[in-house]
Amino acid sequence: MLFILFMETRTEISSLGEFGLIEHLTKNIEHQNISSVLGVGDDAAVLDHFGKQIVVTTDLLLEGVHFDLAYTPLKHLGYKSVVVNLSDLYAMGATPTQITLSVGISNRFGLEAMDEFYEGVYTACEKYGVDLVGGDTASSQKGFVVSVTAIGEVVADKYIRRSTAQKGDLLCISGDLGAAYIGLLFLEREKKIYLEAPKVQPDLEGESYVVGRLLKPEARKDIIEFLEKETISATSMIDISDGLSSEILHICKQSNLGCVLYEEKIPISENTKNSAFKFKIDPTACALSGGEDYELLFTIAPADYDKLITNEQISVVGYMTEPELGANIITKSNNKHPITAQGWNAITSSH
Amino acid sequence: MLFILFMETRTEISSLGEFGLIEHLTKNIEHQNISSVLGVGDDAAVLDHFGKQIVVTTDLLLEGVHFDLAYTPLKHLGYKSVVVNLSDLYAMGATPTQITLSVGISNRFGLEAMDEFYEGVYTACEKYGVDLVGGDTASSQKGFVVSVTAIGEVVADKYIRRSTAQKGDLLCISGDLGAAYIGLLFLEREKKIYLEAPKVQPDLEGESYVVGRLLKPEARKDIIEFLEKETISATSMIDISDGLSSEILHICKQSNLGCVLYEEKIPISENTKNSAFKFKIDPTACALSGGEDYELLFTIAPADYDKLITNEQISVVGYMTEPELGANIITKSNNKHPITAQGWNAITSSH
Repeated sequence: MLFILFMETRTEISSLGEFGLIEHLTKNIEHQNISSVLGVGDDAAVLDHFGKQIVVTTDLLLEGVHFDLAYTPLKHLGYKSVVVNLSDLYAMGATPTQITLSVGISNRFGLEAMDEFYEGVYTACEKYGVDLVGGDTASSQKGFVVSVTAIGEVVADKYIRRSTAQKGDLLCISGDLGAAYIGLLFLEREKKIYLEAPKVQPDLEGESYVVGRLLKPEARKDIIEFLEKETISATSMIDISDGLSSEILHICKQSNLGCVLYEEKIPISENTKNSAFKFKIDPTACALSGGEDYELLFTIAPADYDKLITNEQISVVGYMTEPELGANIITKSNNKHPITAQGWNAITSSH
Repeated sequence: MLFILFMETRTEISSLGEFGLIEHLTKNIEHQNISSVLGVGDDAAVLDHFGKQIVVTTDLLLEGVHFDLAYTPLKHLGYKSVVVNLSDLYAMGATPTQITLSVGISNRFGLEAMDEFYEGVYTACEKYGVDLVGGDTASSQKGFVVSVTAIGEVVADKYIRRSTAQKGDLLCISGDLGAAYIGLLFLEREKKIYLEAPKVQPDLEGESYVVGRLLKPEARKDIIEFLEKETISATSMIDISDGLSSEILHICKQSNLGCVLYEEKIPISENTKNSAFKFKIDPTACALSGGEDYELLFTIAPADYDKLITNEQISVVGYMTEPELGANIITKSNNKHPITAQGWNAITSSH
């Protein structure tokens, strides 16, 4: 269902009270990790990561800024709220183990809406083997607010930073890029049409790939597992949430290096290209500046190249250079341009 | 200054961009804990709590729901946002070590406002020996949103639950109660007067104690340290954020016990009594149902009583009974009433 109608059954959340709501939302939790010693129901959760380092990350998602409930099913929102945080942990080479979740809701939402949201949260927790161990619920005057903190563990000092790429390392990308941004353009267009003419059925024809990439992204657990299995040490890593340009510049700046990126090597799905064609937009621009792909960008030593060519989910797109050479893209027409960050900027943009 | 005027110097946050803002806000961070291996500036922070258990808690604070910027200085808000989370960790018997902080801000706020807020955050971090290791900033369409996650450590299996009080244990309270609620009533009254007649100077006479308790609460690190020093094992503990009644009922329910609470033993400061008198409100009601005191409620074995009578910051207010007897308060006039939770409820109330 593209445009969400609020459910007809509606239980006022105020009828449960805050503690009743928390009990209701967490009654089915079963911990999957030994390290989850104590979960929801006390002042704080207790974790035990004896002998491993733990990694922690947090994200704040605001209605009207990070998501639009006109076309985002609450279950998908719950799922995505978890996944975007896990993506940050995988980008550190860590294994996610716990999350905390805080939700602010206005009285526009009933209990059934909260249940839908949490169903998505628990689906993601189960898929990625993560325990929800705590959180907070609050009323909001307006809008839906989600804050997730994710905690993971990593073998001592084996976490992967952004700042440790080496000159000559190969730049690699998982999966494909640019789809989520096209998905957003598409949904924004359909929303506009719907608002102007509610009886027109949304034209989803052929756009399920790009819409799915926006609404239900996955974190690349499989890539971390593959690298470990093949004993490939990524020398640096970052997840692609703000667009490839922005992430490459983070690696370059923090590693004090330059890079060469080949446009023709950037992985873009045929679905994305077809959708971009309909919108008369350059798919490369979507990959470079679109964001929300939640793929991994990482570097490896050239000696590890042979170990990853068998994996079709990984593309080698360039290499790291001396810092003096700057960060550059070689276009399909063989021109060289400096890479500039024009990614979605949560501070200055309106979505 | 009671009513905050937005500063005349104003730097648009959009001029920095998200990454510039984060750099600006975190440039002076110096870690205080060895366990803070890697902080702000990567996908996630890295913590290392080798051989200890870690404890994690999170809180979401929303403008217009949890705080009113008409009378809450941003520096105080930053300070309080940290302290309320640390209070939860102390209530577990844990030592806070790190926090993550996410902030959502509308374009109503300039950089100077953010600096003020973070000044309060860093002041609290320094006072309590805690490191800010990560976070997120986002634009909000409306209102100020704060989400803090705090992480602490505890000797393995020495954390203090709500569910482990024993029959016959003594009920203890740190500090004094009820002041924050009176402070809120007072500030709400002054705000109303100000809105009706902006030229009338606020009448702060004699109310600095209750106002201070609301705007700048402290977490009771000293009580945890005292109990440890005197080798007193609290058998259960909770922090008093929703009012004494609500917290006592949590202990009773989760420990499957009843209790007797003596009204005359409830610690209430003379300042609070005087202020309550002016508002024609019962100070006991403020203590029972007011909330936001951030004191500790805990139980101890009767054998430990002698060890804590020297500490004037701790009051023994009652004892735990069999569950069949229920949770009761003995009033000053020697009547017995069941304790009912009427605390501030973030879901159903309007402040």
